[in-house]
Amino acid sequence: MGGGGGGAAAGVELSANLGEFRLEKVLSKDEAGKKVYLLGEVGGARAVLKLERAGWSDAAISGLLVPSTAVDKSFSNDVYSKYSAERGGVVADLTCPATDKHVSKATHHPMVLVEETAEGYAAVTRPFIEAIPPSRLQWVYNILEKKAEAERLIYEDADAEVGFVLMPDLKWDGADSNACYCLAIVHRHDVRSLRDLTAAHLPMLRGVLEKGRQAVEVKYGIPADKLRVFVHYQPSYYHFHVHFVHVEAHAGGQAIGKAHLLSDVITNLELCPGYYQRATLAYTLSEGDPLYNAWEAHRSAGGAEQQAALPRKD
Amino acid sequence: MGGGGGGAAAGVELSANLGEFRLEKVLSKDEAGKKVYLLGEVGGARAVLKLERAGWSDAAISGLLVPSTAVDKSFSNDVYSKYSAERGGVVADLTCPATDKHVSKATHHPMVLVEETAEGYAAVTRPFIEAIPPSRLQWVYNILEKKAEAERLIYEDADAEVGFVLMPDLKWDGADSNACYCLAIVHRHDVRSLRDLTAAHLPMLRGVLEKGRQAVEVKYGIPADKLRVFVHYQPSYYHFHVHFVHVEAHAGGQAIGKAHLLSDVITNLELCPGYYQRATLAYTLSEGDPLYNAWEAHRSAGGAEQQAALPRKD
Repeated sequence: MGGGGGGAAAGVELSANLGEFRLEKVLSKDEAGKKVYLLGEVGGARAVLKLERAGWSDAAISGLLVPSTAVDKSFSNDVYSKYSAERGGVVADLTCPATDKHVSKATHHPMVLVEETAEGYAAVTRPFIEAIPPSRLQWVYNILEKKAEAERLIYEDADAEVGFVLMPDLKWDGADSNACYCLAIVHRHDVRSLRDLTAAHLPMLRGVLEKGRQAVEVKYGIPADKLRVFVHYQPSYYHFHVHFVHVEAHAGGQAIGKAHLLSDVITNLELCPGYYQRATLAYTLSEGDPLYNAWEAHRSAGGAEQQAALPRKD
Repeated sequence: MGGGGGGAAAGVELSANLGEFRLEKVLSKDEAGKKVYLLGEVGGARAVLKLERAGWSDAAISGLLVPSTAVDKSFSNDVYSKYSAERGGVVADLTCPATDKHVSKATHHPMVLVEETAEGYAAVTRPFIEAIPPSRLQWVYNILEKKAEAERLIYEDADAEVGFVLMPDLKWDGADSNACYCLAIVHRHDVRSLRDLTAAHLPMLRGVLEKGRQAVEVKYGIPADKLRVFVHYQPSYYHFHVHFVHVEAHAGGQAIGKAHLLSDVITNLELCPGYYQRATLAYTLSEGDPLYNAWEAHRSAGGAEQQAALPRKD
């Protein structure tokens, strides 16, 4: 891999250590601050230096799990505690004692892409949703009825048909506007997900998009062209809600196969009123997810022919 | 922040150092290996430990840019060289001498979301595409005509109307199937992007999706339900091509506002033959991108009223 190309003589290299780089300024930091790009000089020539921490090798892990890696406790609460370790610039989160659920959550589960036809929704997903105890949505109703988190609302359209509440998401601390994450929850209770939407819901959807953007701009000074506004399918709970996230934010849940731009949803319903009753919708599921298990049970019962790509045993 | 909740007594903490954690096994590593979850024991109790390297603070940067941070050169080529530093487990990439273009590429440019209507496409994006010199696509034609990279093709449907070639993307080394990244390039030259697609292209699109998946399964053993198959709008070059990426891969370019699942594209054209001539399509652009500049020029000329969310000066 050593240099040897025709132009190799043109470059300037480090001979021994990072002290040879004279820092002028930080140009940028990537997602989550794991990479940083620096402007400076090496041997009198202008230089860009990228620093990135290496991934966790087995050697790096065992090298840290030794008595010489002293830790400072940041906080502890019940079974959860958090530390910083000076050596290696490491943050450590301990869960102890750990339940099976803690262990499962920390374990990698393979993902699959499901292509859910309208028939697949009727056979598997809708019965799955309808079997969820209604009490799981009580926390949502508490917000809509101002029995909880009322002080956190930043906007409300109180109309029973097209109205919604808007509030910052718990995962945003409100400090950095580039990390803005707000959530709109509609007042009506009968839209479980994307699949229930028809052209009749267009006034509600346009209201959430337009009034929600305006409210975020008024409250946080973030204009419409700095926000991704989207819904999840599958969502984590089956009461229609919409995410408002800054385009620079490094929040997850924005990939195709999970996220759908609200403007695309509106376009789809404008061009085809029954779009979401007819479309094939693709989404990723982790093996072991309850809905994944429902698809597996359906497949075992011989219902898999309808799907182009379905969970299968490896 | 110190513990003090009712259940604080139930937890087990580290008293002094990471050596108190007795490792049993690695449960999972997150994207790009920056976080790792470990199963083990603390004081005889089962524990889950998450290790994550802290982000780059100014202190961490200046603490590394010192003579005591020795580096090993991995390779160098012209102005580019790469090093590993034992201290802090750091990988460093140096570009020296650096041009203005190198500096601009490493600098953070704010992003905006553009909502491109059909009228906006006709007024701004289509003229922008048509002004690109045709020679920019010569490398694509070289691949299609087997003048370049012929040995890298893993599948071809040679039909002039619906055919395509499939090859591994240069960013995938072929080693880890969970990182699989392949690219299909269609033979016909007249589809510049999503905007040019009509129902007449459905046989080509279905062929790319189905035959492409089969070829990836035959060649790499990766089944259809482990692949995200998508196109970009805006794409990096205006000759229709499709990305085939493993669902577990940590490749970028899969967010809404850039990526469109090919199965969604097919659904849209099945439900509405003229979908992409009529739809409003949203995408993110970096300020300074040539297309961003074209939108800015259009806006300055008074053409911005058509768009709901457009680049604007802050």
